[in-house]
Amino acid sequence: MKLKCKIADILSPTPMGGMDPVDCAAIGIKENDRIRISGPKGDISVVLICSDQLVKKGTILLSEKVAKRIGATNGHMVEVTYSPSPESVRAIRKKMDGEKLSAEEIEAVVDDIYAGSLSNIEVSAWLTSLYINGMDIEEIANFAKAMVDTGDKVPFEKGPIFDFHSVGGVPGNKITPIVVSICAAAGLMLPKTSSRAISSACGSSDFIETFCNIEVTTDRLKEIGETVGGAFVWGGSMNLAPVDDIVIKIEHPLGINPRAQMLASILSKKLAIGANYLLVDIPTGAGTKIPTIEVAKAYARDFMDLGDKLGIHIECAITYADQPVGSAIGPNLEARECIRILEGEEHPASVIEKACECAGIILEMAGFNNGVAKAREILKSGKAHEKFIEIVVAQGGRADLKSSDLEPGKYTADVIAPKSGYINSIRNKDLVSIAKACGSPADKGAGILLFKKKGQRVEAGEVLFTLYADNEAKLARAKELAERYSPIVIEGMLIKRVTAVGRR
Amino acid sequence: MKLKCKIADILSPTPMGGMDPVDCAAIGIKENDRIRISGPKGDISVVLICSDQLVKKGTILLSEKVAKRIGATNGHMVEVTYSPSPESVRAIRKKMDGEKLSAEEIEAVVDDIYAGSLSNIEVSAWLTSLYINGMDIEEIANFAKAMVDTGDKVPFEKGPIFDFHSVGGVPGNKITPIVVSICAAAGLMLPKTSSRAISSACGSSDFIETFCNIEVTTDRLKEIGETVGGAFVWGGSMNLAPVDDIVIKIEHPLGINPRAQMLASILSKKLAIGANYLLVDIPTGAGTKIPTIEVAKAYARDFMDLGDKLGIHIECAITYADQPVGSAIGPNLEARECIRILEGEEHPASVIEKACECAGIILEMAGFNNGVAKAREILKSGKAHEKFIEIVVAQGGRADLKSSDLEPGKYTADVIAPKSGYINSIRNKDLVSIAKACGSPADKGAGILLFKKKGQRVEAGEVLFTLYADNEAKLARAKELAERYSPIVIEGMLIKRVTAVGRR
Repeated sequence: MKLKCKIADILSPTPMGGMDPVDCAAIGIKENDRIRISGPKGDISVVLICSDQLVKKGTILLSEKVAKRIGATNGHMVEVTYSPSPESVRAIRKKMDGEKLSAEEIEAVVDDIYAGSLSNIEVSAWLTSLYINGMDIEEIANFAKAMVDTGDKVPFEKGPIFDFHSVGGVPGNKITPIVVSICAAAGLMLPKTSSRAISSACGSSDFIETFCNIEVTTDRLKEIGETVGGAFVWGGSMNLAPVDDIVIKIEHPLGINPRAQMLASILSKKLAIGANYLLVDIPTGAGTKIPTIEVAKAYARDFMDLGDKLGIHIECAITYADQPVGSAIGPNLEARECIRILEGEEHPASVIEKACECAGIILEMAGFNNGVAKAREILKSGKAHEKFIEIVVAQGGRADLKSSDLEPGKYTADVIAPKSGYINSIRNKDLVSIAKACGSPADKGAGILLFKKKGQRVEAGEVLFTLYADNEAKLARAKELAERYSPIVIEGMLIKRVTAVGRR
Repeated sequence: MKLKCKIADILSPTPMGGMDPVDCAAIGIKENDRIRISGPKGDISVVLICSDQLVKKGTILLSEKVAKRIGATNGHMVEVTYSPSPESVRAIRKKMDGEKLSAEEIEAVVDDIYAGSLSNIEVSAWLTSLYINGMDIEEIANFAKAMVDTGDKVPFEKGPIFDFHSVGGVPGNKITPIVVSICAAAGLMLPKTSSRAISSACGSSDFIETFCNIEVTTDRLKEIGETVGGAFVWGGSMNLAPVDDIVIKIEHPLGINPRAQMLASILSKKLAIGANYLLVDIPTGAGTKIPTIEVAKAYARDFMDLGDKLGIHIECAITYADQPVGSAIGPNLEARECIRILEGEEHPASVIEKACECAGIILEMAGFNNGVAKAREILKSGKAHEKFIEIVVAQGGRADLKSSDLEPGKYTADVIAPKSGYINSIRNKDLVSIAKACGSPADKGAGILLFKKKGQRVEAGEVLFTLYADNEAKLARAKELAERYSPIVIEGMLIKRVTAVGRR
């Protein structure tokens, strides 16, 4: 059927075309079918939307991008025919039916997601199927390989490459620069790529960018890695396994992160930088992604099995995550706490302990004995700080960087203990919501500073935590949330008083 | 955040808004999040698309419909804030996790789908979860009730109401007008609503509209039902359980029709017309929706259990569907074959037999003895034809309607047997594809006429079937498909000759 082009601002992540329902019926096509549009410069297959409100009979609505691709302009006549769904839709159906997919089938799905050939409907069905029916280790390994093939790789010529990854889910986890600096100071290559917050209050990249540049090319990462040893850059600045970014947009509204997708996505990025040794930190506790030790152990086994399939030596650290790591949540606050420790400050102990335990395991993978002791020694000696500054400078930061350069937001509010007692629990998820309400991670000064942690004694009227914001309106909203959520739970020693009533 | 409105042609079934990624980051929102837009006339919650290509920083792209709703015009400043997902997304998550949903949760999902508050991503996840995790009978009954509540009901004052439904999947199933006419001639009220083809070559409504009007209001259907007894109208012309139409658009590209969705959708329409007695035809055979008797029996049990929960007396007929019913596929061809039988023609026997068996069961539900014999008697006596014409006239058709009025397309091609033998099998799905290539159901003359059915002897060179089309190009394409598919499989009595080779 010949239709007249009308070019419009079509808002859609996948290429779409709009037709009048009468024209659709005439060639036997329905909404969300695909149509092939042939213009003077070529063909394109797009997803169809039927609308009698936006499109007139005899015309087809196209975005500027689609029109350009086929060489059509406003008023141009183009040929429109039915176009079958991509073959990968069959693989999605197979996964819906709980079947195992071949390497080729997984590759087809990944390639079509990357190319934008699958609609939101199809990608959502894929992720939901992965969430419910899962994948076995072989499928996940093939999935990771398919993902890495869609992007760039870092062309390291030296090795071995060490890497470190946290599954995430615990607020305040600012150990990356410390772990990297310790390991690099010991002579290891640890070119770490981090991410920004997805649902958390502050990703590693979100606080690292407060004191140095985190956007680099793969060539520059190679250079830094091979000369300085360590790096802490933003993975999103390179084109490593880019299909992940598309998938995240669909996972996000559903609030799911299927195990197969999560594992494949992590490992694809490790494959892309050519990691030989990898430590995976699995924060475990109520209110995190991994609620119990049993679940954490199952993930650890998956990671190690995947490592075997993919030729990466993987070890795992199941870490305590019932409450935030350290005291600070939010970009400048976390950066300050992190750099203070590198400068020699001995508080908060939980950050130092976690960083040294993790660095210690990596050092042992590299052949050192007593890794944790070695890590503490490197931190205490100032060598880690020296290396940290070297990395910061390599990433465009200042050689005279001090923790005191990082200032929290100027609008503050204290949250006070309403009664005396012991801190019984701290709800991570509520703290994350409050920190986000403060403006974190976009507002660099925004966040939370905790003064009390689990098990500590608190008196009525003492400050439990302080909120920081870069503007007054956000502070007010965060304060309101903090009052509503009461994320720090205080109990007396007496949990419940049982009085004998009506006893004979 | 205040943004300037830009009104554009946004192609999307759900309300959307477009913002620049920098603005999105500033208020901490991501693609596919929801935003609340406040204009002078009110608020609306829409799904967010981030685009640095279509939207400039400081502006928000809205469709005319959304802009109108909040009273904004081009250049107007509107307030934009984060808006949480609808509560029903939690119910979708529960179904993903395989949990049973309450009546309220199911109602929330159905209402939000109907209101357009759920995005394609969320509806797709819902359908995929239903497909994989299913629903029990109680959930499906609640699902059907929730669906009927979104639409209109036919306000019948008389009763009881009899109804008839085919699960579909077999081409050429033109029995509806015959069954309705027989039952109405016996004095029953059978106000049948049918559908158009979804994936088939020709739905009941697609061929009935060739000889009478199928679009009526609920009030008119009440009138026809209460005076004439029978009707065969298009359900889509009324607003019965309209949420189904939205769901079909998402099921279609995935090629799924989850059992729970299918059952709830059928029964919601029966609830909407107030059916007291329902016969469900379950066509069973290779190449249909229901491949085996075991699957058919399971569906029959589901239907009867649902009938108990919903207060409808349901019986089921598992019918033969290894090949098309009768000889004709396509609107005019099916209408002609159907009316010929009402006029007294005794061929094809399969159509007469199926229609009388089904009508017979309905007559027995109404208290008649020997229903099938009674149905045959009514058909043979001409009373069914008389009632048929009465219904046709009530639906705006001609009183002198003859089967010969219905002419097949003028472009024809014969498909010839390449060899002699017996018809071993007929592939329904291939015939459907070929009939659609002919132009069915939009082109009323398009379709297929079969001359040979399973088990019959055929000589090389005899015509197996004839293709009809309203235009030459479609005929050519259908012919090409017919040659490629060879949907009629001929075998000699000797299936395979085994020759002893190298035997000592």
